[in-house]
Amino acid sequence: MTGTLYGLRILDLSHILAGPFCTMILGDMGAEVIKIEPPGGDGARTYGPFIKDESAYFMSINRNKKSVVVNIKTVIGVNIVKRLSRISDVIVENFRPGTLEKLGLGYEEIRKENPRIIYASISGFGHTGPYKDKPSYDMVVQGTSGLMSITGEPNGQPVRVGISIGDLIAGHHAAIGILGALYYKEKTGLGQRLDYGMLDGMVYLLENAITRYYIEGVVPEPLGTSHPSITPFQAFKTKDNYIILPLGSEKLWLEFCQVIGREDLTKNLLFSNNYQRTLNKHILIPELEKVFQKKTYKEWSNIFEKNGIPYGPINTIKEVVKDQQVISRQMIVEMEHSLVGPYKTVGSPFKLSQTQTGPRMPAPYLGQHTREALSNLLGFDDEYLSELKEKGVVGWKDL
Amino acid sequence: MTGTLYGLRILDLSHILAGPFCTMILGDMGAEVIKIEPPGGDGARTYGPFIKDESAYFMSINRNKKSVVVNIKTVIGVNIVKRLSRISDVIVENFRPGTLEKLGLGYEEIRKENPRIIYASISGFGHTGPYKDKPSYDMVVQGTSGLMSITGEPNGQPVRVGISIGDLIAGHHAAIGILGALYYKEKTGLGQRLDYGMLDGMVYLLENAITRYYIEGVVPEPLGTSHPSITPFQAFKTKDNYIILPLGSEKLWLEFCQVIGREDLTKNLLFSNNYQRTLNKHILIPELEKVFQKKTYKEWSNIFEKNGIPYGPINTIKEVVKDQQVISRQMIVEMEHSLVGPYKTVGSPFKLSQTQTGPRMPAPYLGQHTREALSNLLGFDDEYLSELKEKGVVGWKDL
Repeated sequence: MTGTLYGLRILDLSHILAGPFCTMILGDMGAEVIKIEPPGGDGARTYGPFIKDESAYFMSINRNKKSVVVNIKTVIGVNIVKRLSRISDVIVENFRPGTLEKLGLGYEEIRKENPRIIYASISGFGHTGPYKDKPSYDMVVQGTSGLMSITGEPNGQPVRVGISIGDLIAGHHAAIGILGALYYKEKTGLGQRLDYGMLDGMVYLLENAITRYYIEGVVPEPLGTSHPSITPFQAFKTKDNYIILPLGSEKLWLEFCQVIGREDLTKNLLFSNNYQRTLNKHILIPELEKVFQKKTYKEWSNIFEKNGIPYGPINTIKEVVKDQQVISRQMIVEMEHSLVGPYKTVGSPFKLSQTQTGPRMPAPYLGQHTREALSNLLGFDDEYLSELKEKGVVGWKDL
Repeated sequence: MTGTLYGLRILDLSHILAGPFCTMILGDMGAEVIKIEPPGGDGARTYGPFIKDESAYFMSINRNKKSVVVNIKTVIGVNIVKRLSRISDVIVENFRPGTLEKLGLGYEEIRKENPRIIYASISGFGHTGPYKDKPSYDMVVQGTSGLMSITGEPNGQPVRVGISIGDLIAGHHAAIGILGALYYKEKTGLGQRLDYGMLDGMVYLLENAITRYYIEGVVPEPLGTSHPSITPFQAFKTKDNYIILPLGSEKLWLEFCQVIGREDLTKNLLFSNNYQRTLNKHILIPELEKVFQKKTYKEWSNIFEKNGIPYGPINTIKEVVKDQQVISRQMIVEMEHSLVGPYKTVGSPFKLSQTQTGPRMPAPYLGQHTREALSNLLGFDDEYLSELKEKGVVGWKDL
């Protein structure tokens, strides 16, 4: 099978997480990704843990990419990127707004090289508006967007989503914007620019919290594991572990009450529909908590399994990587890094019937493809490459 | 400006959140979305809060869609969907695996009608593997994937991400899979099927937690607001509110220490680089906590602002919707619902320079476009529509 995006070339000027996650998605879908790194490497290469001096953090988000070291703070480096842009379909960058413009690599400069280019900029707040020049990171966006204010224990300490969701969502949204723009380019031949702000992306994801606030006038708060609009839809402590009970329909609620032998609850007007149950959560939940404490997780899960009631565990990472469904869906794969040897990483969720997605190439070491890419794509010979390396314009890790 | 996906027609058989979020993304990008609802409506229409009997939950994720009520449990209903599939580019569905197959609307049936169709199935665990028949909801996936095990206060209660991240990510991943498949179809003329499992999607998002676990052998745990691999990168309590301090580079760390007058910390070998600071977090953080308590949020933010140190607040939803950047980026927009009147909802993060994205049409009331769509697309006349309505095959809300 060929890759879904076979034949598409991405010139990747991005670093750390948001941009690299975007290009990992596109690489997983089959695009060729030329990752331009500064002589010191993408900053993510300094994040631990390390295996044989290689950053595992970096390795987990940079498979299917070629590492090409080019110093874009030099005139020749800028020229190399411009020449690469002529033979690329997409540019992805996540520098602070204005940075690439100052170097002569902004959208207006690049479109002169390649008018059909799709140029995607990811930044904390976007390239317009009062915050555009503010430095930002995932955490700032998690906090500013309001997501942190609705995540955590009721009246508890602030809590970050355990993954860098602002960056990850940015990567996804940028990929969607790029793919949409590619569709438009296929139809019209026109390129364009995506100005993506991470804060915009997090606000887009607040689901119904904003609408709820406008309608009810009540500021949404963290609710532990429970859902703001659906009840019961949360974790309960059993005799041993927690069990998740998401009852998303009236039918499930009625079946659940029958299964636990509490049909009386279905006759209580306080719990007569989802809206009532949510309103009267403070009465219903303690009642259910008592029920759940009577059996172990295993006992409850057997009962629910038999009766088609949805339920689930709170797995640790150790349990997830051994989970039979995760393994069956090939979501844990082993790759062979050129310096590190075999390492395990995640598979691809984009399972298409006719085209290939997922890991093909391990994450590269610094400058692993500098010579190959610049020789194949721009015709540089060994002598010139060595000369450029001496001048600090290009580079690679000497093994 | 035309929509980015102008001319693309999505036949949307999905309900509740994961599928509808996918089609909202595609609708925001300019596609035409024909939302097929059962006579009782998408289950999300029963989730509160309500404005004039319309669900605000539903309204927040169904703009840019046409509501067409078709009972797919009837022979004629199945036939209507098949006929619509011939003139559609994409089908999105999130029924339990096997449901549409039983009704004669599975991929194999639909591709007979339209071999070029892209048919995207979203389910909790995917259409293969030992869990494929298990019922699932967002919470089950949050718990099973391990995300909940790394979100929350250290040694605290389990915590759900404050949004239905499993569903939302599913919507994003399905949109990416569809757009990738559309690119492939533009190149080759071939359609295909996407088999998306929400659990796969959450595992894909665990960032470096899996790699960390494999390398260090330590099971990742919830860390409150702090980051597993970067330090300091968390919220600190000031004299009044919390402030977020994400120091993602050595340069920022050095500048920060200078700004707070604690250059001694940069000379301490325990904190000599990010890796050391993360290892010795238990010594560094209490030290910084003392520093932060000396001033208010406002005082610290002024200092950091002046010195280019990234920082941010933990906003409530009330503060987010008034945030000047959010407003400047048009992330809060007002729409006019046919029955409810004006309501506020989120804008689009897909800001492209040449094509339009974002809200165009408010969320529909139940069956608002049944007559229009079936008349325009399939040539049904008023008489036949009334007959079908009487038989319970199609429907609309009588005003």
